[in-house]
Amino acid sequence: MLLQGIAAAPGVAMGLALVIQEGPQVVIRYEISGEQVQAEVERLESHIQLAILQLKALIERTSATVGSEQAKIFESQIWLLQDEEFSGAAKDTIIAQRINAEAALDGASDAIIGIFESMEDERLGERAADIRDITNRVMRLLEGKKEDMQQESEDPVILFAHDLTPSDTAQLDRNKTAGFVTDIGGRTSHSAIMARSMDVPAVVGLRVGTKQVKTGDYVIIDGSQGAVYINPEQAVIEEFKDKQIRFRARLAELKKYDGQPSITADGQQVELVANIGNAQDAWTAKNSGAEGIGLYRTEFLYMGRNQFPTEEEQFQAYKVVAEMFGKDQPVVIRTLDIGGDKELSYLDLPKEANPFLGHRAIRLCLEETELFKTQLRAIVKASAYGNVKLMFPMIATLQELRKAKELLAEVQNELEQENIAFNRDMEVGLMIEVPGAALIADQLAKEADFFSIGTNDLVQYVMAADRMNERLSYLTEPFQPAVLRIIDQVIKAAHREGKWVGMCGEMAGNLTALPILLGMGLDEFSMSGGSVLAARALMHKLDRREMKQLVEDVLQMTSAEQIKSYVECKVPAIADWRA
Amino acid sequence: MLLQGIAAAPGVAMGLALVIQEGPQVVIRYEISGEQVQAEVERLESHIQLAILQLKALIERTSATVGSEQAKIFESQIWLLQDEEFSGAAKDTIIAQRINAEAALDGASDAIIGIFESMEDERLGERAADIRDITNRVMRLLEGKKEDMQQESEDPVILFAHDLTPSDTAQLDRNKTAGFVTDIGGRTSHSAIMARSMDVPAVVGLRVGTKQVKTGDYVIIDGSQGAVYINPEQAVIEEFKDKQIRFRARLAELKKYDGQPSITADGQQVELVANIGNAQDAWTAKNSGAEGIGLYRTEFLYMGRNQFPTEEEQFQAYKVVAEMFGKDQPVVIRTLDIGGDKELSYLDLPKEANPFLGHRAIRLCLEETELFKTQLRAIVKASAYGNVKLMFPMIATLQELRKAKELLAEVQNELEQENIAFNRDMEVGLMIEVPGAALIADQLAKEADFFSIGTNDLVQYVMAADRMNERLSYLTEPFQPAVLRIIDQVIKAAHREGKWVGMCGEMAGNLTALPILLGMGLDEFSMSGGSVLAARALMHKLDRREMKQLVEDVLQMTSAEQIKSYVECKVPAIADWRA
Repeated sequence: MLLQGIAAAPGVAMGLALVIQEGPQVVIRYEISGEQVQAEVERLESHIQLAILQLKALIERTSATVGSEQAKIFESQIWLLQDEEFSGAAKDTIIAQRINAEAALDGASDAIIGIFESMEDERLGERAADIRDITNRVMRLLEGKKEDMQQESEDPVILFAHDLTPSDTAQLDRNKTAGFVTDIGGRTSHSAIMARSMDVPAVVGLRVGTKQVKTGDYVIIDGSQGAVYINPEQAVIEEFKDKQIRFRARLAELKKYDGQPSITADGQQVELVANIGNAQDAWTAKNSGAEGIGLYRTEFLYMGRNQFPTEEEQFQAYKVVAEMFGKDQPVVIRTLDIGGDKELSYLDLPKEANPFLGHRAIRLCLEETELFKTQLRAIVKASAYGNVKLMFPMIATLQELRKAKELLAEVQNELEQENIAFNRDMEVGLMIEVPGAALIADQLAKEADFFSIGTNDLVQYVMAADRMNERLSYLTEPFQPAVLRIIDQVIKAAHREGKWVGMCGEMAGNLTALPILLGMGLDEFSMSGGSVLAARALMHKLDRREMKQLVEDVLQMTSAEQIKSYVECKVPAIADWRA
Repeated sequence: MLLQGIAAAPGVAMGLALVIQEGPQVVIRYEISGEQVQAEVERLESHIQLAILQLKALIERTSATVGSEQAKIFESQIWLLQDEEFSGAAKDTIIAQRINAEAALDGASDAIIGIFESMEDERLGERAADIRDITNRVMRLLEGKKEDMQQESEDPVILFAHDLTPSDTAQLDRNKTAGFVTDIGGRTSHSAIMARSMDVPAVVGLRVGTKQVKTGDYVIIDGSQGAVYINPEQAVIEEFKDKQIRFRARLAELKKYDGQPSITADGQQVELVANIGNAQDAWTAKNSGAEGIGLYRTEFLYMGRNQFPTEEEQFQAYKVVAEMFGKDQPVVIRTLDIGGDKELSYLDLPKEANPFLGHRAIRLCLEETELFKTQLRAIVKASAYGNVKLMFPMIATLQELRKAKELLAEVQNELEQENIAFNRDMEVGLMIEVPGAALIADQLAKEADFFSIGTNDLVQYVMAADRMNERLSYLTEPFQPAVLRIIDQVIKAAHREGKWVGMCGEMAGNLTALPILLGMGLDEFSMSGGSVLAARALMHKLDRREMKQLVEDVLQMTSAEQIKSYVECKVPAIADWRA
C-alpha cells in the first residue's frame, strides 16, 4: 500500500513500524476547599519550575546532539511557562473556581490554544503546539508520571504518530529512529524542521496514515517525495535500497561545493542567496553556503507579540544580519508584508473577502505611514553596518513606488539631520509579484535599482488561482508557459535599463527551473538555505549560452509538463542533484 | 452640503425634499386556542389572495405607465406569494406554535430573508427585498391598513427613504416625483432599475443620507454622478439648471442614432452589442439599439432555484434570444461561471479563502462534466435558431481550452447521432480574463474563433486587487497602463491569427475608453443596453487612424489619471455624450 503525505525531511528510511497510540487524555477535575487554594496554587507553581528544569536539561542535550538553533524551541517553551498570561491564567482559575491544578491548567491551555488556532497563522499554529507540549509536560509531572516514549526494540524503527511535539522529537534516539511519519503538520512545522536538522527522513501530514499501519509492519518512507510504502513488494524494497545509497552519496558530494564560487561552466557568476525570517535563519543559511540574503521577511518580527516592535528592536534585528554578512555579501530587507492573510493581533484590519487580493503590504504601509517610517528608519540605520538593500513588496503601479521612495527620502533626511550614520547609496528595489508591475517593468526599472521576482504570488495572480487551494495546484505551477513568459519579459526589461534581477519565490530553488532562469539571464537566486549547495553544484555543469537556446525552445511550448520534461531531458545533471 | 452615493439613474432633479420616516415595524404576537387555528390559517390565506389581487392591479398599472418588463417584478412577487415554501411555512407556524397570522408571517419571512441574505449574491439580495415587500403588503392588509405613500404636495418633490421596495417605486406618481434617493441599494437594485426605466433621476446607497436631510430642504440630485446637494448656493443651482437642460437635449439627440450603423468617421464598422442575463434583458437591449448580444451570462438561469435547470429549460432560454436577433446578429452565450462568490443552494461547493482566485467557472465545469455537457447540449441545439456563438469563461491554459472543446465535440457528435439539428460551424471562443491567458494569447488564438476580453476580472487579477474592495479602487481601474498594455497585446495576438476580439467588461461601455479600444482595433464592444447609443454617437465622430496614433501615445504614459486626461483632451466629443 502506498500513502502520500508531505515531504518533510529528505532521505529514505526502511524498517519496522512503531505506532504510538494516543488515547484522548483524561483530565480529572475536582473541587477544593477555600483553605486548600493557596496550597494548590503552590503545587502548580512548583511543578512549573520542575518543568523548566527539565526543559533546561533538554536544551543542553539538544544543543549537543542536534544543534543550538533547535534548542531554541525549548527556550521559547521556557519563556511561555514563565509568561504570566499562561501560568497566571491557570492560577487565577484555581482561586476563582476552587478547582484542582490539573483542571485549571487544562482550561487555561485550551483557551490560549483556541485563540492561537483561530488566527489561522502557521507560526501561531506552531505556538499552539508549544503550549500543548508544555501543558502535557507539566500535567505528567503533576500526575507523578515519568514515562519516556523511547522504545525498547533492537533495530532502528520508523515512528508513526498522530503528531510529535518538539519535546517528543528531541527525545528521539537517533540510533533507534530511522525516520518518522505524522498525520498532521506541514513542511514548516516544528517536527519537520527538527527532522531536517537531524538528517532523519520524515513525512508529515499523512492524514489518517497512522490508522492504516500497525506496529511491526515493514515500511519504507521516502522523505523526499512524501511517500510511505506499507509492506511493499521485494522489488520496491530493492529499488529503495539503491535510492538510499544514492541519497547518502549525494549528501557527501554536495558538501564539496560549500565555499566554492557560484559560477556556470562557462565562467559566468551569479548570486546564490537565501530567504530568511530572522537572524537564526540567517546563521543557518550562512552555514549552508548562502552568499548573502535575498529576502529578509521582516513581518515575523511583528508577529506573535502584543505590540509593534520598536525602531530599536527592529534596528538590532536588521543590524545583526547585516553584520553577519559583512560589507560585501548583500542583505535584501523587504519592508512589511502584513494584511491579507497575515494578521497582527494588535492591528485591527477589516476582514476581507479575498485576502490575497487585499489591502496588504505596501498598500497598507502607504496609508499607515508612521508604522512604515519606523521600519524604514530601522532599515536605513542598519545600512551603516553591512551591504543592506531595501525592497518594497506588492508594488503594482509607478505611483506606489514613487510614494514609497518619497517616504524613504524623508526618513533619510531626518536621520541626516540627527547625524545618524547610514549608507546614502543603499540600493532600493521592489518585488515583482503583481502582474501589473511586470507589465510596466520598463517604467519601474527606470526608478528602481533592482527587481526581485516573487514567484509564489506572481504565479497565483497570473493564473488567477489561490496557491493554497489544493484543487488548483495544476494551475499554480511556475512552469506554466504564461509564467515563464512574464518572467522573461521582466528580466529583459530590467536589463535594458541596466538593472539586476533576482528571484525569491519557491521557483528560485527548483533545480528544473534553474537552467531556464540561467538562460533568461537571472542575476540572483534566493532560496531556502538547504537548497544552495545543490543549486551551486548544478550550476557548475551548465553553460549559460546553451541555456539561452533552451529558453528559446521553452518559450514556444504550450504546457508545463512539456517544458519540465524537455528541460530534464536536455539537462540530465538535474537528476544527480535532486534531493 | 454635498453627499456622495451611487449613481442609479441619470439626470438632474431639483426641488424640495420629502423624507419618508420609517419606524421599526412592530409585529404583535399572541397565542390562539386550538379551535382558532384553522380560522387563523384561513385568515392568512384570504389576505394572501387579497395581496395577489392588489399585485395584479399593480401589474396593469405598471405595464401601462412604466413598461411590461418592470411589471415582471410584481409577477415574480405573485409567484412568491403562491409558493408553498413561503406561505406554507407561515401556515405551519400557526398550526405548530398556535400563534396569530401576523407573527407567523413575520417569522417565516425573516427565516427566508436570512437564508437569501446569507448567500451574498446580489440577485438573491433582490429576492430578499421582494419577500420583504410582499410581507409588508400582506401585513398591512392583515392589520386593516390601507395607507398610500403618495404625498399631497403641489410641486414635484425629491423623495428620501431608507429604502424603496418595488411596490413603493411603482406607486410613485411621476408627475409629483422629480427624483429619489435611498440609503441602501446598488446600481442593480430593483429601485435603481425601475428609476432608469421611468427616466427618474435617482441616487442610491447614500448610507446615512436621509438622516442628514429634512423635509422641505432644497436639494439637487445628480443621478449621473451619484451626488446629492442639500441647500446648495445659488451658483450651484444655476450650474445644475444648465446641466439639466443639456441632459434633456442629449437624450433627444441620442435617439437619432437608434437604427444607424456602428461606423467610425472614416467608415470602419465595429459591432455594438449588449451584456444580458436573460431574455428580458435581451429585449430591452434590442430596443436600446444593440446589434446583438456579446455576453449572455447563463448563470442567472441556475440561480434562485432549487435544482439545476433541465436541458430543455436552458434550450428554450437560449433559443428565444437566438431567434430574437435572427440569422445575422450574433448571440454570444457564455458557459456557466459559477463557484467562487456565485453560489448555488443545490450545489455543495467548499468555502474558499479567496473565492475570486477559486475553483470556479470552467475549472468547475471541467470536473462536473455532466452538468457542463447538459448546458453544452442546450447551447448547441439553440445554434440552429440564430447566430449563436459559444464562449468559455476563465480559461487560463491551452489544456483547459482543449478539454472544453473535446467535451463540446462529444456533445455535437451525440446530437448528430440523435439527428438533432444544430450549426456545425458555430464559432467557439473564450473570455480573456486571466492574465495567464492574455500572456499565451498567440497559442490560444490558434485554437479558438474569437476572444472576448472580460475587463472586470482581468483588471483585478492584473492589479492583484479585489474589485469589490473599496480601499483598492485606485488600483482596479481599467485605465492603468498595465491593463491597457495587456489588452493591446491580446488584440494584436488575435489579429495576427486572423481572429476577432470583443470586450464584455464595464470598460467596453466607457466613453473615455472607446477611442483607445478603437485605436487598438477592438472589433466588438459589448455593454449594458443603455450605453449603446452614446457609444455609437461618439464612434461616428472618431477616425480610427487618428485613434491608432492616440494609442501609441497612451501606451507610453505612466498613470491612469494622465491617460484619462489626455484622451478626454484629445477627444472633446466624449464630454458631449457622457450621461
